[in-house]
This record gives sequence, structure tokens and C-alpha cells, in this order.
Amino acid sequence: MNSNEVRIFETKERILADNDKAAASVRERMKDKNCLFINLMSSPGAGKTTTIVKTLAELEKIRPGIRTGVMEADVDSDVDARTVGAAGAEAIQLHTGGSCHMDADMTWRGLEQMKPEGLDLIILENVGNLVCPAEFDVGADFRVMILSVPEGDDKPLKYPLMFTVSDVLLVNKIDTAPVFDFDFDALEKRVHALNPEMKIFPVCAKSGEGFGPWTAWLAEKIEEKRKGSGR
Amino acid sequence: MNSNEVRIFETKERILADNDKAAASVRERMKDKNCLFINLMSSPGAGKTTTIVKTLAELEKIRPGIRTGVMEADVDSDVDARTVGAAGAEAIQLHTGGSCHMDADMTWRGLEQMKPEGLDLIILENVGNLVCPAEFDVGADFRVMILSVPEGDDKPLKYPLMFTVSDVLLVNKIDTAPVFDFDFDALEKRVHALNPEMKIFPVCAKSGEGFGPWTAWLAEKIEEKRKGSGR
Repeated sequence: MNSNEVRIFETKERILADNDKAAASVRERMKDKNCLFINLMSSPGAGKTTTIVKTLAELEKIRPGIRTGVMEADVDSDVDARTVGAAGAEAIQLHTGGSCHMDADMTWRGLEQMKPEGLDLIILENVGNLVCPAEFDVGADFRVMILSVPEGDDKPLKYPLMFTVSDVLLVNKIDTAPVFDFDFDALEKRVHALNPEMKIFPVCAKSGEGFGPWTAWLAEKIEEKRKGSGR
Repeated sequence: MNSNEVRIFETKERILADNDKAAASVRERMKDKNCLFINLMSSPGAGKTTTIVKTLAELEKIRPGIRTGVMEADVDSDVDARTVGAAGAEAIQLHTGGSCHMDADMTWRGLEQMKPEGLDLIILENVGNLVCPAEFDVGADFRVMILSVPEGDDKPLKYPLMFTVSDVLLVNKIDTAPVFDFDFDALEKRVHALNPEMKIFPVCAKSGEGFGPWTAWLAEKIEEKRKGSGR
């Protein structure tokens, strides 16, 4: 093995600094809306849309009449907004026009459409990507990421930033763990080495397995925000 | 459902035009090297590294003594270069420093390290991402993508550009198709609607299932390039 390592750095600092300012501004403008805003991120195919649909259904059970909205960010297509809309949620589609992530400015344009003052919870389904969405703060109260079992337990080693900046990790498709060589304990250790505060919920979005603790956490945060005592 | 669609476009045109020029220059400089250059792309966890290791082992069986090199692009970490190196391949690690894709300039810096004039095949394992790597031509002879079964058969609808620009699609983890609701015929139809020329090989990189047709195709392209009659 040739042990050469070639380090290639790009100067993204300015773009990211501008975005951080815009994210702070989103947070400021959302402050008095009493609407919890979640940024949901994962790889393509990890189950973001299915998780949203199941989460909203479970929330409705524990808090009947809860008012929720979903912003579906996609490079192109409106498959997800249709799915979420069909499940009864208020949904808008955001087309990023080729961009691989949502930034804070794009997010604000979406939030204005959603009218957060009339809602208890807005979830942004970010573009399916474990890299750039981790770098671009969109001004959400919490960042939630999904890792699906088939992706492997080594992902914190490969995409450390996403695991570092997120507040909650949903480990999805947990029912398929026997099919893959997935070591949940090894994952947990790797995640907590990067981010000791990370909350980890093993779930199966298809069956709803494990959704109790996750939706209880979410309902608590919605309540805190509603009372103006949240983040 | 609020059927609002918010279209957000970014002006990436200039960056992409500059990259296209750099990619043409890579292709020009690689022309007389008689070394096939493959750009391998997929989501995180689709099985790029396992596929590379198995592909090189199978190639060695049908063409003993074949000289191969692998460039492992990662945001951070050298997990993959170690794995590929341990399997006996010439391997270098490229750290993109936070960038979610390889561009043609970064690629050329890696190729110079690899010394393509002494090799028959170089594979670039791109950053795990279905969005940006599709937009950035790196000057490879062929673009090969992997979609793993657990990601779902709807991915051509969500990430159409990747399926449009790639020459070959490896459908990996085909052994898990019964576990997921994966419709291979539906996938094939969606892929060929975007890209009628796409070659599709169902494989299982772990067991080697389906690797015969894929490595035969690759060996043919290596031979054409060696003779100077390739792309």
C-alpha cells in the first residue's frame, strides 16, 4: 500500500460565515412564533419521509389536534410532498435547483410560506446527503438525523460532522439488524465519542417500533416551545 | 395539502463550467496513458469499498498480474484506504476537507500521485453522496454508480442526474431484496426512462454474486483502453 495522503482543502469559510448569520436571523424571527422547528437529515433512502409520516401519526395520538407542517426539500421531484400530503399533513415542496443542501436563506423562504405562527411543529426534510446539510445551519431548534441499519455502524467514522452537530439520532430499519452485520453497541460508542450528548432512539419507521420514546421526547420539546421556555 | 411549490435556484453555472474545462484537461492528459479511469459514486453505505475490493479480486482471477490503483476520496478519515490497501491494491487517500464531492482539479492532483502510466486501471471512490458528485465531471472514462437495495427502487425519481450521467449501475446487496419492498423491474424502467443506455448489473459485493458480467464488462474496457481504442 502506498500510504500517501493527499489533503485537499476548499475555502468554504466565507459562505459558511454568511450562512451562520442568516441562520441566527431565522432563529431570531422564529423566536416569538412558539412553533418548534426541526431540521431532519440523512442519506438518501434512510427513511426520512416514512419517519415523518409515522411521527406525525403518533404525535396526533398523544396530542390530538396538534398542528404540524412539513417542508420537503429536494433537488427535483415532489414525490415526498405528495406522500406527506396524502398522510394529511400541511406540506410544501422546496426545489433546491441542484443544490445538495438547504441553507438558511432558502429555509426562511420556505418558512414564510408555511406560516409558523399557526403551527406547533414544522419539520424540514433536508436533501438526502450526509455531508453538506451538516455544515449549513438552517436556524432550526434541533437537528435530528437518521442512520439506517443497512448503511453500516461505521458511518460516524466517515461522516463525523453530521454526528457531531445533530441532537438526536434515529437508528432506522432496526428490524433488519440481523440481516446486516450491524453492531449497535459499536455505533453507540462511536457516536458518543464524537457527541456525548446525542440522544439515540432505535426505531422502525415502517412498523412504528421504538416510536414511543422518540415521539415523547418530541412532544416535550413542542410543549416547551409552546410555553416559550424552549431553546 | 398546501400544494405550494417554492423553487429555489442557485447560480452554480460558473463553477460547473470551470470544472468542465478542468475535466476535459484531465481527459486529455490521461489520453496516452492507456490506463482506464473509473469514477465510482453512490450514497454513503451503499457498498463502494466492498465492491472495489471484490472487483479487484475478481479481475485478478480473469487477468492475472493486472495493475490497479484506487483513490479513496473522503471528507475525513482513512478507513477505506486501509481496507483497500489491506486487500493488496495500490491505494491513496484523498481528503476533501469538508467538500462533498471530488472536482476535476482535486482528481488530477490524486492521479499525479498514482502515476497512471504504470497502471491498467484506476478507480476513484468518490465521496458518498448522490447529488454533487453527479454534477462534477472528474475526467473519468466511465462513471459507475451503485444503488443498494435498502435505499429503495424510487431513487431515480429523487436523484435523476446521477442516474442520467452514469454509464453503469451496480444494484448492490441484491441478496436483501426479499427483506425490502424492492421492485427490480420498476427500478429498471425508471432508470432506462432517464438513461436508455445505462448498463445494469445486479450484484452482491459481499458474496460476489453477479460479479461475472460486471467484471467481464470492465475487463473489456481495460483492454480497449490498453490498445488505445477506448473512449
